[in-house]
Amino acid sequence: MYVRYNYNNEAHEGFVDGDSIRHLNGTMFKHDGLGEAHTELASVDLLPPCKPSKVVCVGLNYRDHAMEMNETLPKSPLLFLKPSTSVIAHGDNIVAPKDAGRLDYEAELAIVIGKETKNIPTSDATQAIFGYTCANDFTARAIQLSDKQWTRGKSFDTFCPLGPGIVKRVNHDDARITLMVNGELRQESNINMFIFNVPEVVSYISRHMTLLPGDVILTGTPHGVGPVNHGDVMTVSIDGIGSLSNTLQIV
Amino acid sequence: MYVRYNYNNEAHEGFVDGDSIRHLNGTMFKHDGLGEAHTELASVDLLPPCKPSKVVCVGLNYRDHAMEMNETLPKSPLLFLKPSTSVIAHGDNIVAPKDAGRLDYEAELAIVIGKETKNIPTSDATQAIFGYTCANDFTARAIQLSDKQWTRGKSFDTFCPLGPGIVKRVNHDDARITLMVNGELRQESNINMFIFNVPEVVSYISRHMTLLPGDVILTGTPHGVGPVNHGDVMTVSIDGIGSLSNTLQIV
Repeated sequence: MYVRYNYNNEAHEGFVDGDSIRHLNGTMFKHDGLGEAHTELASVDLLPPCKPSKVVCVGLNYRDHAMEMNETLPKSPLLFLKPSTSVIAHGDNIVAPKDAGRLDYEAELAIVIGKETKNIPTSDATQAIFGYTCANDFTARAIQLSDKQWTRGKSFDTFCPLGPGIVKRVNHDDARITLMVNGELRQESNINMFIFNVPEVVSYISRHMTLLPGDVILTGTPHGVGPVNHGDVMTVSIDGIGSLSNTLQIV
Repeated sequence: MYVRYNYNNEAHEGFVDGDSIRHLNGTMFKHDGLGEAHTELASVDLLPPCKPSKVVCVGLNYRDHAMEMNETLPKSPLLFLKPSTSVIAHGDNIVAPKDAGRLDYEAELAIVIGKETKNIPTSDATQAIFGYTCANDFTARAIQLSDKQWTRGKSFDTFCPLGPGIVKRVNHDDARITLMVNGELRQESNINMFIFNVPEVVSYISRHMTLLPGDVILTGTPHGVGPVNHGDVMTVSIDGIGSLSNTLQIV
């Protein structure tokens, strides 16, 4: 698992190897192997696993959620954006203003782009991908619904937790995705329930906008979204990736 | 007028002084005056005048447009985002795919943020502003309307022309904004028709997301939006700033 982390007040990139982080000879996206040097995993603060120039999100994209909502399946992915200023790391607090109204978690698989990509066909789209991480598309639901445009309710600082790190591969045929609130299961599905699969989503977005290394695509949330309160701990887990935990703070 | 430009295949920042560009002792956002060195304005290619990490846009924000549409005035600014990959310079082509359907110009005043800003009150909001430039919030109208979420129709590469350069001040009480297509007037209004004025918009957005130096806010378009075709030249002009021209290419 690739991670970014703070050590001696500097940002570093490395690869988790047991209880330690091996340094990279280069950057995550371009390196010639792991160095000998290492840092104890327990001694560092994780940073968001990449620095996206943009976070492109897909709306309704799980068959189970569409069926539950009695909605017809969309003909193409519905896109929206979250700003890079909304991104935080595993362990960071989600901070929402007290007048924001209802606040919802949304567990999602995040795709991390590895190279500049434009107009890539579905058949080649996996070449654009560096890896995968967990995301929480945190949402001020009342604002999202009153504005109708989804941007404002999803763009507050801290509303895009990503992490804990990036893995190169997931099992697209069978990987469970869950979200727990204070240890209680709230969302449970499988990424094999996608309406538009990972290559289709990457290709579709790349036909609209150039994707850059580190850019992130959120692939939609399964059924079971719901509200959280001050102090609640949300944990997104995806088989083969790990767990992303963040606590909600309402100020 | 501050500009960014290509010279000897390198990006530079400077200040336009008659027919030449004076170099800066530092960057646009932090410099201690103009250097003696200069470059002929005619010998360079302009770049987008800043490199925004995000472009935050305000929907319906002109009284004349709201009255024309018989719409009630919005109670708060309606926000959406354009990705940084949509930004182009004065003189660059807007390139749209031939299956995008109807394509519309939208002349707008762009605010360029000068320093990191979060939760700034309206009374202090002008302190966050570096300057102003012209923008064309170019829009694939058919896609915008069919998706309902505005993101996809406004996020194609090249759909956010900015420029030609940045001025420190505009006359907020009286500055005409126009858009010409092939020399024919299509939009004409005045930025004194804003529903939410510049400090209100900056303050409102900063209460949702941190604004960074170089970030851009598009302040909405006046009445008179309409479609354009392959080869059409659009020119946005704002009193005290200058003119931003781009040609539409449909491929």
